[in-house]
Amino acid sequence: MSNPAVVLHKPHDIRFDNRPIPDLEDDYDVIVEIKKTGICASDIHYYEHGKIGEYVVDKPMCLGHESSGTVTKIGPKVTTIKVGDNVAIEPGVPSRRSDEYKSGNYHLCPYMIFASTPARNGLPEAQGTLVKYYRSPEDFLVKLPDHVSLEMGALAEPLTVGVHGNIRAGTRFGDNVLVLGAGPVGLMNAIVARAFGADNVMIVDVFDDKLTAAIEIGAATHTFNPKSGSHKQLIEDFGRQPNVILECTGVESCIQLGILASKPGGRFVQVGNCAKNISVPMTEMSMKEMTIFGSFRYNYNDYKTAVKILDDNYKNGKQKVRFDFERLITHRFTWKDAIKAYEFAASGQKFTKIMIDGPE
Amino acid sequence: MSNPAVVLHKPHDIRFDNRPIPDLEDDYDVIVEIKKTGICASDIHYYEHGKIGEYVVDKPMCLGHESSGTVTKIGPKVTTIKVGDNVAIEPGVPSRRSDEYKSGNYHLCPYMIFASTPARNGLPEAQGTLVKYYRSPEDFLVKLPDHVSLEMGALAEPLTVGVHGNIRAGTRFGDNVLVLGAGPVGLMNAIVARAFGADNVMIVDVFDDKLTAAIEIGAATHTFNPKSGSHKQLIEDFGRQPNVILECTGVESCIQLGILASKPGGRFVQVGNCAKNISVPMTEMSMKEMTIFGSFRYNYNDYKTAVKILDDNYKNGKQKVRFDFERLITHRFTWKDAIKAYEFAASGQKFTKIMIDGPE
Amino acid sequence: MSNPAVVLHKPHDIRFDNRPIPDLEDDYDVIVEIKKTGICASDIHYYEHGKIGEYVVDKPMCLGHESSGTVTKIGPKVTTIKVGDNVAIEPGVPSRRSDEYKSGNYHLCPYMIFASTPARNGLPEAQGTLVKYYRSPEDFLVKLPDHVSLEMGALAEPLTVGVHGNIRAGTRFGDNVLVLGAGPVGLMNAIVARAFGADNVMIVDVFDDKLTAAIEIGAATHTFNPKSGSHKQLIEDFGRQPNVILECTGVESCIQLGILASKPGGRFVQVGNCAKNISVPMTEMSMKEMTIFGSFRYNYNDYKTAVKILDDNYKNGKQKVRFDFERLITHRFTWKDAIKAYEFAASGQKFTKIMIDGPE
Amino acid sequence: MSNPAVVLHKPHDIRFDNRPIPDLEDDYDVIVEIKKTGICASDIHYYEHGKIGEYVVDKPMCLGHESSGTVTKIGPKVTTIKVGDNVAIEPGVPSRRSDEYKSGNYHLCPYMIFASTPARNGLPEAQGTLVKYYRSPEDFLVKLPDHVSLEMGALAEPLTVGVHGNIRAGTRFGDNVLVLGAGPVGLMNAIVARAFGADNVMIVDVFDDKLTAAIEIGAATHTFNPKSGSHKQLIEDFGRQPNVILECTGVESCIQLGILASKPGGRFVQVGNCAKNISVPMTEMSMKEMTIFGSFRYNYNDYKTAVKILDDNYKNGKQKVRFDFERLITHRFTWKDAIKAYEFAASGQKFTKIMIDGPE
Repeated sequence: MSNPAVVLHKPHDIRFDNRPIPDLEDDYDVIVEIKKTGICASDIHYYEHGKIGEYVVDKPMCLGHESSGTVTKIGPKVTTIKVGDNVAIEPGVPSRRSDEYKSGNYHLCPYMIFASTPARNGLPEAQGTLVKYYRSPEDFLVKLPDHVSLEMGALAEPLTVGVHGNIRAGTRFGDNVLVLGAGPVGLMNAIVARAFGADNVMIVDVFDDKLTAAIEIGAATHTFNPKSGSHKQLIEDFGRQPNVILECTGVESCIQLGILASKPGGRFVQVGNCAKNISVPMTEMSMKEMTIFGSFRYNYNDYKTAVKILDDNYKNGKQKVRFDFERLITHRFTWKDAIKAYEFAASGQKFTKIMIDGPE
Repeated sequence: MSNPAVVLHKPHDIRFDNRPIPDLEDDYDVIVEIKKTGICASDIHYYEHGKIGEYVVDKPMCLGHESSGTVTKIGPKVTTIKVGDNVAIEPGVPSRRSDEYKSGNYHLCPYMIFASTPARNGLPEAQGTLVKYYRSPEDFLVKLPDHVSLEMGALAEPLTVGVHGNIRAGTRFGDNVLVLGAGPVGLMNAIVARAFGADNVMIVDVFDDKLTAAIEIGAATHTFNPKSGSHKQLIEDFGRQPNVILECTGVESCIQLGILASKPGGRFVQVGNCAKNISVPMTEMSMKEMTIFGSFRYNYNDYKTAVKILDDNYKNGKQKVRFDFERLITHRFTWKDAIKAYEFAASGQKFTKIMIDGPE
Repeated sequence: MSNPAVVLHKPHDIRFDNRPIPDLEDDYDVIVEIKKTGICASDIHYYEHGKIGEYVVDKPMCLGHESSGTVTKIGPKVTTIKVGDNVAIEPGVPSRRSDEYKSGNYHLCPYMIFASTPARNGLPEAQGTLVKYYRSPEDFLVKLPDHVSLEMGALAEPLTVGVHGNIRAGTRFGDNVLVLGAGPVGLMNAIVARAFGADNVMIVDVFDDKLTAAIEIGAATHTFNPKSGSHKQLIEDFGRQPNVILECTGVESCIQLGILASKPGGRFVQVGNCAKNISVPMTEMSMKEMTIFGSFRYNYNDYKTAVKILDDNYKNGKQKVRFDFERLITHRFTWKDAIKAYEFAASGQKFTKIMIDGPE
Repeated sequence: MSNPAVVLHKPHDIRFDNRPIPDLEDDYDVIVEIKKTGICASDIHYYEHGKIGEYVVDKPMCLGHESSGTVTKIGPKVTTIKVGDNVAIEPGVPSRRSDEYKSGNYHLCPYMIFASTPARNGLPEAQGTLVKYYRSPEDFLVKLPDHVSLEMGALAEPLTVGVHGNIRAGTRFGDNVLVLGAGPVGLMNAIVARAFGADNVMIVDVFDDKLTAAIEIGAATHTFNPKSGSHKQLIEDFGRQPNVILECTGVESCIQLGILASKPGGRFVQVGNCAKNISVPMTEMSMKEMTIFGSFRYNYNDYKTAVKILDDNYKNGKQKVRFDFERLITHRFTWKDAIKAYEFAASGQKFTKIMIDGPE
């Protein structure tokens, strides 16, 4: 028996390798057979550059961290999940003894083992999820309700990024939300803002077709293309100044636009990854007494919240959905074509989310 | 009878003019005879450049907003203050009907009349406090306890800036605080951090004598001169990463130092005024999931809190003070020499706080 | 010209009197011609007992505080409202100079003038809204959108009580909410919980028809009749322990039920008025480390939030409403029959909300 | 080799038994030789009644949970503590996988193993600390600085209860704090309130000598004996209404006094254990929009904060202490006299804190 895996050897060199089949290491462990995996911008960055900042792929590394699957084996103390269940996989497992875990901030744990990360600081390489069998502790899996598909289960990962951004912002009923970027992360942040009660959500992108899609998906109520003007035009188009800004591009001009457009007292969340240094209008920020929140991955309950949003969306049948999540999946590849999926992703063609099947 | 005033006509042209003696406009108004006024960096900026950002002195403008004085007249509905009381003067009065006032954020009120501000947006010029008689509503005055001097009452203004910075940071017992800058604003922020319970406070400046003074004043427990190394050296010297950073310089390298030194999850407050755009290590900020707070002037209760800190400090006599506030006042000028005080302040010589007497 | 008013002289003695027509006292004042007024439980209590706690009707007092109307006159500085606008009336106006107003807690202002309250502590009698012409400052009126009816505008008052209860609770997406009581206040609290993102809302009442109505109105997803069992049964029926409890009855057994059913760490809000002393399971409360919030009337932005909920509900036409607010209005009376409305309300017959037209 | 233990067999039947010497069960475990143990009111309650609520001593149970000691053995992965270190022992260890632990609320973990608790709900009996050798995971021990004695290390437990009460209250500079009860828990809560920055702290007790001691210890600035009057007298004596109330008696009349005395918007923390049901002035609580916080034991960082308070207190030598903690220890017993210590504690004689040495 084998455990096929999609492994990055060096930039643009990606192969099907065989990895050891994982076994239960712990009474609370679960083995999941991976069924669906989304490609993240970070996967593509590894594929093209062989590194992200200080994370350098110097040994072959299995890719993937946005996955769902079906449970094939459970440890003797597992009680909430059974063999055959479909699950979404939270791909980072922290140390149970770190101060960060203990204080409710496990996402900041320095001993985090996050799927598809090279070895560093004495921590081992973290296995990616583009593999057949994957081991996870029970409490980092979220059971999918029957009416939530495995593809949606894989989408839960970027949706959770949106949950965490909105948790940081404290988005609530009555907020007027500006989302910078209409890619997967921006759309997910906008969707969560609406699920959390925001009735006015403006999304910003330079591509008009993405803006149209954002409206049709149900992610936004207003759109703005920066080609049409400055923050003053944005405010006029929105009919108000946003008091919550979710920055999902990492682009300097977007960060500036968000701060300039903000209402005094506004809450700005930096969700998108950006360049090392960014020129920020700090005087404007400070005189308006804004608050800028970093947002890093996700924490306790965020994954469950994402699955709950999916649950709510599909519980009355696909005809009555509020958010058209399926439209985010613009391209699908079989396991056999997983390498082609990466080649496509790096080709510069347009896509929102690429989904790869698990091995048969 | 006359109301002498120190008035800026144009850059470097400052004169003694006579202004109308103010009368009670309202049953809650109070007339204060000004006794002590501190010079703020913004006063000096007006003196040298005739403007601060969009605030342009195009007509003669009375200077000063850090003042204390003695009450000479009260309106018929004033109940908490009487003629002869010494008071600290909160120099900005917002609209009582603005949304900001109503929601507990009067410092963000767009209709704020803040002492010594040019006319703009339909708002009149705001009278400065370098004058003999000054009118204020009762509730923007704080009565000074007997053991708090009028000089300390004038110092209450920058101390209140420190209160607000620490309120934004939520400074509390156990926090490890880094204060960038050992000028008046930095010292005041450090002192308030200690009064709020922080036991480890490191202050940073490029002048070693200022660092020594910060320790002697009781503002800091640790010091760091950036000439001695990077944020790594700072962390080693401090014995820990700070979790609260109060940036009181506005200097780009200091802002960067504070963010790089911060503990994951740290709270960073931008108190100092800075250049329009600042190059900020946003990736570091976001991956450590920091929060950056703007801090603008002060709000409800901040002034009272500052006077309470002074009250606590002096209530057992000057021999038992915790914080040596008097050491902050490095230079004193009589009213007659008020113009010399500005010339000195702009001369490039070293000082911490310059205090000017009221007219005799 | 005259200003007819519904005035309580003593218990069960209610009359049509004529009151002086109010004039603008201030440049920001507005005169509203009252069109719809709901009867509140407190009105009925005054009607039957001539007092509520320390508030004693010892002189004839005009009733009513849940009203909407049409603007007939505006002061010269009014900018956001014009003659002819329909408005909801926030019936309590605080002192603009109190510490409570200044700190963002105007609902706790001791100088509050709240419609239909007897004179006390040096404050004058506060005019009720069951009158033809009523004066209010501009900023305590909320303009009704075209698609929100005047009846809905009068309902905004109890809806705002629900907003404030949920603001105190911090209700958000993912909360499991228990509402005690299916009268108007309970229904409004449940509706707001859902608008704020709570997907599971259980409502509790001893009348099964009220429970059925709560579901049909869209206020609740689950119901429980305490006759069917204890808090253990409630938890089983709900499928979980609630983490937010909104107590809208004031009844001792309901308060106890809510605390016993709560999840550890739960947030409990006392919205309903209760007897002076209540037997509370404090050990259970403390060992589960719950938080109990008092909730008093409403504060800044709550009224606007209520009107926004109405706006959202009706903006796509009455056929697409999410919440069937109109079903709360079980009885309607003309102005001429206003006295009959009170007699009916005190008769012991069942009703949810009684609405009285304004004078013709 | 043996492991002597003080074991409760049934009410008033307490014996010296021998328990198995614990071994490291885990690479992160530490063995501590107990040196000092304080007697808690709950120990005495077990001694007299053989149970506390649902916790019934039906098998012999080792007593004690307020202890310090010296490390004798460490697991191979222990890095922060070494053999010979003196440590304070946090006596409750939660499950590392519970939702409560994961979300930063481990004190609410239903799988908590808390020293000296009978077996229940499938959880084993939790070993008490009145024993020679005691096992704890590294991260539930806090190293004592050299200048903090082992007795102070044992006092850290009730001090931590005070920390948690004040964390719940959010006590900060400028708060006016009322503490009900001048026993060990009340004194500790008052001391922490002052360490957190509260300058006005009033303590309430029916014994005047306890009130005098509270002042001398440095715990309070004001005192009140309820024999001298009602809440109105209390407010007059304090010169203000408290805005933070720490209830440390569990007595109904004290709970009522605290609520009646509170300032509108006040924060009330129920720290003391009370009877099952308490008659609470809920209308007053709600109309003043107070918040009542349950407070259960302690959570992450509270123990470290308590040791930090001790560290601060003694770092400049015993002559310069701010709080006279030693005065809380009114009685000391040797290990041999441990049973006599319990007999004394149950005798009705006055004491504050009784301290028992470890076995020789």
